[in-house]
Amino acid sequence: MEWMEKGQTVLIVGLGLMGGSYARALTGLGYRVTAIDRDPEAIAYALAEGIIRDGSASEETEEQLVREADALVFALYPGIFPEWVEKHQHLFKAGAKMTDVTGVKSCVVYRIQELLRPDVEFIAAHPMAGRERSGVENSDAGIFRDANYIVVPTEKNTAGGIQWCGGLGKALGCGRITVLSPEEHDDMIAFVSQLTHCIAVSLMTCSDNTHLAEYTGDSFRDLTRIARINDRMWSELFLLNREALLKQMDIFLEELKGFREMLAAGDTEGMREKMRLSTERRAMFDKR
Amino acid sequence: MEWMEKGQTVLIVGLGLMGGSYARALTGLGYRVTAIDRDPEAIAYALAEGIIRDGSASEETEEQLVREADALVFALYPGIFPEWVEKHQHLFKAGAKMTDVTGVKSCVVYRIQELLRPDVEFIAAHPMAGRERSGVENSDAGIFRDANYIVVPTEKNTAGGIQWCGGLGKALGCGRITVLSPEEHDDMIAFVSQLTHCIAVSLMTCSDNTHLAEYTGDSFRDLTRIARINDRMWSELFLLNREALLKQMDIFLEELKGFREMLAAGDTEGMREKMRLSTERRAMFDKR
Repeated sequence: MEWMEKGQTVLIVGLGLMGGSYARALTGLGYRVTAIDRDPEAIAYALAEGIIRDGSASEETEEQLVREADALVFALYPGIFPEWVEKHQHLFKAGAKMTDVTGVKSCVVYRIQELLRPDVEFIAAHPMAGRERSGVENSDAGIFRDANYIVVPTEKNTAGGIQWCGGLGKALGCGRITVLSPEEHDDMIAFVSQLTHCIAVSLMTCSDNTHLAEYTGDSFRDLTRIARINDRMWSELFLLNREALLKQMDIFLEELKGFREMLAAGDTEGMREKMRLSTERRAMFDKR
Repeated sequence: MEWMEKGQTVLIVGLGLMGGSYARALTGLGYRVTAIDRDPEAIAYALAEGIIRDGSASEETEEQLVREADALVFALYPGIFPEWVEKHQHLFKAGAKMTDVTGVKSCVVYRIQELLRPDVEFIAAHPMAGRERSGVENSDAGIFRDANYIVVPTEKNTAGGIQWCGGLGKALGCGRITVLSPEEHDDMIAFVSQLTHCIAVSLMTCSDNTHLAEYTGDSFRDLTRIARINDRMWSELFLLNREALLKQMDIFLEELKGFREMLAAGDTEGMREKMRLSTERRAMFDKR
């Protein structure tokens, strides 16, 4: 089954790495993709690359793009996302569907669904895909391949809307489509994504280690790949999910301190037990 | 220049993942490779695969293999390595050269060089390569490709011996050959390898997260790949480098706690500054 009828118009709001990757994928699938971004260069680049059909970087010309959209994909910073919807929703086509890519959910989903016109449905989603470099010029439809895609509905959503949103994930080529509540999503993301980014950053900043580049093996490179980070976006995501992330950081800090104490005490069996547990658990992540 | 004359005999002592990978690479290069291991199945496997010419799993038959060896590569657990040398060195060929793959250096290199016969030279090395799975059946000559290879000489080593040891790294296909003192090596390894393994293990053990497997993105998988760990070997390596590792763990714990405090206090600019520093430093690791 097709996600939407080919030729329908999908408006990308926010044409960075993620918005650009949606644009590439959806244009490739035969949809009419348009985009709005505050940066004229991002729009010019996407037009030149042929990954959008039309675009706007100014308030004057964006109105028509919003009116024409059958579906809207929001790839904005979470801090400006609800305001954008509030300001522009009078232009939305009746029956339009909206989704997003935002990395935190509780703080945006309820607020937007509360203020949204009743004839438009917003079904939140989080494609677990990305790149270390930001910007439309680094976008790539391949980032969705086999990625996990999470639909994050609330009780305001319809079965049809949830199906539509999962269908977009499938159309993009994502590997597994799952469903979580906003709260479940934010707890999960605090652990698997935000905590890991905090760790990677702290590994790079805890001492000046750049002279070690020539000695590192793959393990250090793997652990710090995500230490190349969009500081504006991630600090915003961390703050918007502060309580859940603090909880996960504290659990991890306690565990690592405990391991340190075992090492200090020469508790070989204690360390080996932790390692056996970690080996066993990690093996589950390789089964698909 | 060739590492050694083709057809000379290299004895691998300890035929696990690393020993097996050396055997595959050196057999492929035209050397006569033999091996000693306590496990008859490891020897039988390597003979059947054609990656060694001869092998022994018993004290009776190993004597001849030791006598014949022009070079010896030790891939033993560090705890038994010096004892093995002490017990067998009367069999070594005069003028033979020895190297190893041990992940910690200060605790083994000085001790072995102290007890070693004066007509045999031991030049320590650490190929920064590996796999998550142990055992000769997972060995692969490809693990050396582009890997960093560290020669770890002391003042007891000769210029010729150091060159010979680096030549082995080149022959294996390693990407960059560098030289560090045992103390420099152990400090470096505490940070880039041991600390990262402690972090990966603690991430897996700090809570039961296996139900999250279906939601993870690449970042979590990357950070925990090395959480599949040989518990016997790594606990031994950690204890043998305890002081250096405790120091690095404390530095990292302080840094992560500091980041946690910034988040708790809502210090956006502080977090962004850390992220910018980490981004800048991490970029250095991608330049080669």
